[in-house]
Amino acid sequence: MITGKNYIGNTLSAEGALVYRTFNPKVNLENPEEFTEATTQEIDRAMTLATEAFKIYKSVSGTKKAKFLNAIADEILDLGEELIQMYCSESGLPEDRAEGERARTIWQLHSFAELLEEGNWVEASIDTAMPDRTPNPKPDLRKMLVPLGPVVVFGASNFPLAYSTAGGDTAAALAAGCPVIVKSHPMHSGTGELVATAVIKAAKKTGMPNGVFSNLNSRGVEVGAQLVKHPQVKAVGFTGSIKGGRALFDLASKRAEPIPVFAEMGSINPVVLLPEALKERGESLAKTYANSVTLGTGQFCTNPGLILGIKGTALNNFIETLSEEILRIEPSCMLHPNIKGAYVRNKESAIQQDGLKVTANYGEEVQVNYAQQVVTTVDGAVFLENQTLHQEVFGPFTMVVQCENIAQLEMLILKLEGQLTGTLIAQEEEAAAYPQIISALQNRVGRLIYNGVPTGVEVCPSMVHGGPYPASTDSRFTAVGVNSIKRWVRPVCFQNWPDQLLPDALKNDNPLNISRLVNNIQTNRKL
Amino acid sequence: MITGKNYIGNTLSAEGALVYRTFNPKVNLENPEEFTEATTQEIDRAMTLATEAFKIYKSVSGTKKAKFLNAIADEILDLGEELIQMYCSESGLPEDRAEGERARTIWQLHSFAELLEEGNWVEASIDTAMPDRTPNPKPDLRKMLVPLGPVVVFGASNFPLAYSTAGGDTAAALAAGCPVIVKSHPMHSGTGELVATAVIKAAKKTGMPNGVFSNLNSRGVEVGAQLVKHPQVKAVGFTGSIKGGRALFDLASKRAEPIPVFAEMGSINPVVLLPEALKERGESLAKTYANSVTLGTGQFCTNPGLILGIKGTALNNFIETLSEEILRIEPSCMLHPNIKGAYVRNKESAIQQDGLKVTANYGEEVQVNYAQQVVTTVDGAVFLENQTLHQEVFGPFTMVVQCENIAQLEMLILKLEGQLTGTLIAQEEEAAAYPQIISALQNRVGRLIYNGVPTGVEVCPSMVHGGPYPASTDSRFTAVGVNSIKRWVRPVCFQNWPDQLLPDALKNDNPLNISRLVNNIQTNRKL
Repeated sequence: MITGKNYIGNTLSAEGALVYRTFNPKVNLENPEEFTEATTQEIDRAMTLATEAFKIYKSVSGTKKAKFLNAIADEILDLGEELIQMYCSESGLPEDRAEGERARTIWQLHSFAELLEEGNWVEASIDTAMPDRTPNPKPDLRKMLVPLGPVVVFGASNFPLAYSTAGGDTAAALAAGCPVIVKSHPMHSGTGELVATAVIKAAKKTGMPNGVFSNLNSRGVEVGAQLVKHPQVKAVGFTGSIKGGRALFDLASKRAEPIPVFAEMGSINPVVLLPEALKERGESLAKTYANSVTLGTGQFCTNPGLILGIKGTALNNFIETLSEEILRIEPSCMLHPNIKGAYVRNKESAIQQDGLKVTANYGEEVQVNYAQQVVTTVDGAVFLENQTLHQEVFGPFTMVVQCENIAQLEMLILKLEGQLTGTLIAQEEEAAAYPQIISALQNRVGRLIYNGVPTGVEVCPSMVHGGPYPASTDSRFTAVGVNSIKRWVRPVCFQNWPDQLLPDALKNDNPLNISRLVNNIQTNRKL
Repeated sequence: MITGKNYIGNTLSAEGALVYRTFNPKVNLENPEEFTEATTQEIDRAMTLATEAFKIYKSVSGTKKAKFLNAIADEILDLGEELIQMYCSESGLPEDRAEGERARTIWQLHSFAELLEEGNWVEASIDTAMPDRTPNPKPDLRKMLVPLGPVVVFGASNFPLAYSTAGGDTAAALAAGCPVIVKSHPMHSGTGELVATAVIKAAKKTGMPNGVFSNLNSRGVEVGAQLVKHPQVKAVGFTGSIKGGRALFDLASKRAEPIPVFAEMGSINPVVLLPEALKERGESLAKTYANSVTLGTGQFCTNPGLILGIKGTALNNFIETLSEEILRIEPSCMLHPNIKGAYVRNKESAIQQDGLKVTANYGEEVQVNYAQQVVTTVDGAVFLENQTLHQEVFGPFTMVVQCENIAQLEMLILKLEGQLTGTLIAQEEEAAAYPQIISALQNRVGRLIYNGVPTGVEVCPSMVHGGPYPASTDSRFTAVGVNSIKRWVRPVCFQNWPDQLLPDALKNDNPLNISRLVNNIQTNRKL
């Protein structure tokens, strides 16, 4: 049952006057539930609760936090069909996607729980004392990672489950020991409330302090801005547009106490087609990419929006096949009329640029809010000179750039902004002949893909989802995979600290049996 | 032989019209050498060279980079007495300090060389493919840390060797694979040039690309500002004042492409005296702290500027002894007349605050540019309400706060800004009775010290030198110890990448024989 209220810690609250509804893009109608935007007072209460909760939660053992995360997973599954239906009605996405994303959300929570149970992630490090060292004795120094404090998480429009309420950012922050205040995404506040209920139930069942989690509704940008400026917030996680992410980054940087904002933002995910591969496999590649460009109505941050090749018959054939194949694909629904509107505007703006040629355009609108996929092509020299063509068109849109030669292709990569991914399509042995292309591509991206598609982000320790700006605001961290926990922690060092007062991770007898760096040797041994 | 020129890569250059000299505070005279400030064109050339050098240097093997760092250490030692004399004449610091700091600089370079030779620091991680997984096959994913690109390092006024030209920031960035452009500190440009010569010699001897290192002179803030705004710079390291660090952070945050700035800034390093310890050891503690407050003329970032105790006879006795003892210490020279001037101004500003009582003041100036040490005391309630008293007075100054009770002491810690260190002075078994004090202190600092002094920063893996803002701009990193390399690197992921094209750290047969996380197990094994 949806109440439309905010969770201020464990308490439902709706003191505000601003109400709004979510929208079902498939049927082009508002959903019936009303949501109440959080007030300044509610934001303050959530922050105060989070700050108080942090005093307790920061020292909760890994085992207990793991139980909490696993309980969240169980409670989300327990929401059953209600969650799937709400997800579909607020996103226009199909049921199998809802189920897949739920599975991923559960997997993420379990992955962090495993990480906590194992315990090595705190990077415990011990340098024992050398009292006889000259000229000065060396003290005993021990270090581990500790949580930063309350974290604000902004739900993503395109991942109502896996990158929203109890998604990757929240799971990572809770695992780190940080209370989380979610700024629920206005496009799927119902899905958000259901998941928030699951988190609150899990927190109560596993004895977590009130305030470890809050969920705030908002229609516009004001609640988010207030949260980022709030002195008690210590870090921010965001997934969305460059404009939105940069605005939050700017607010956070201007604070009296600046705080880290990890924003995962836009990307056009360049794909480089090397000549031999293009010649040998152009047709099958075109089919593969027609699917990748339209997957999820092109609404993935890893959507391939830029395909680079060398001018010639093979590339012409590729463009032709890609254009034919993409028009065979049935158009699908976008997340919201606003997303569809932005897609149409950005597509039109790109198409109007001098030198851009449209080679496929699914002209008719099969249904309101459904996207019409587009393939375009442009000369390398034109692309190099027109920065507008470097901007993301969020949706089923791609641009094939016809380069004069490899030197121009390299130059073009060097001029690109930072990207989440870069893909290299090559025949065996071919790639080794293009070290400068690989080097340039690596320097612009967080993840390199060989003979594949960028869509599809595996959740595992070796994943990097992030990259040089504007792919993300800090390329030193990933938003996906258990290492994303590192965004929300800092090291603290204990000098000559008495054993009984040390955290368990640093005690002499290693009660957690974790791997520690002891005098430069990685070991599980006791001291 | 000092030329007074800039190193633009390997080339000495002095195209500018602005010249300046350094100052010997001990004799109160300018030093004879003239230094030429770098021009915009020289800055551009240094940046272009660094960008080109990065294309090569980012892939130089750990073994070769280690040889480079060790060669820098050798060349610095080779400068012999000339370096020591220049250091002393530009800082007013004594010879033994110069030698100690040189030893630390050498140690840092060797430590990073060892880290590179071992090779584990790249955090190599491999998740092998699962082609038969349903519903989707799992790709092969491999991740490691790679350098960010050219790094700008600002030399510190108070560490002409260990935190300047080839100090911790430079050593860490070069170890990471980032070319370094040093903005030489105007107070010790001669020391800077000597060390820069050593770095350039080492770069040539070990075959490093031209542009891997540049050293730019500047008298004011303009060169530094231009560097931080330069589009080709990818990160910044700074040690100095809050004002200076924050200005650079703001410039970097406003760039079209924001870049990380790691600034290690001010700190008052609170020391908590628990009641039993104060009663039992007040006198010896007062002697210890008289020395710690005046060590290096109070010009360490870890100087104990704030001592917190509970009001009473024991604290009165402590203040009395501390005041007597500190006046027995011979005043010493400050780094520069400007530093002395700032000390006098900040000290006066503090002393004029309502409720602050001066209990020791080395009134007479024993010699020009020598600091007069001061002890002050104030009531807890007064300190809580006056933010001016929370500001650092850089120099031999400390303030003893007399708290009403433990609750007020805790409140006071909660209200402090972020700090590099926090010290707890306690009798055995006493500390366990004050968990809320320890918890509050931990939350405000990067390093906790038990029954010691904050001055003295060990260079080892477990050290944390950094802390919540404004101790540093990003508490997630340390400026001291080999982990400081993490400031200058980002993870990159290779998906289904052919083995022969992978970096050695990620190849199947593990040619570097490093420890890697393979399918969640840390191992040195081949695949």
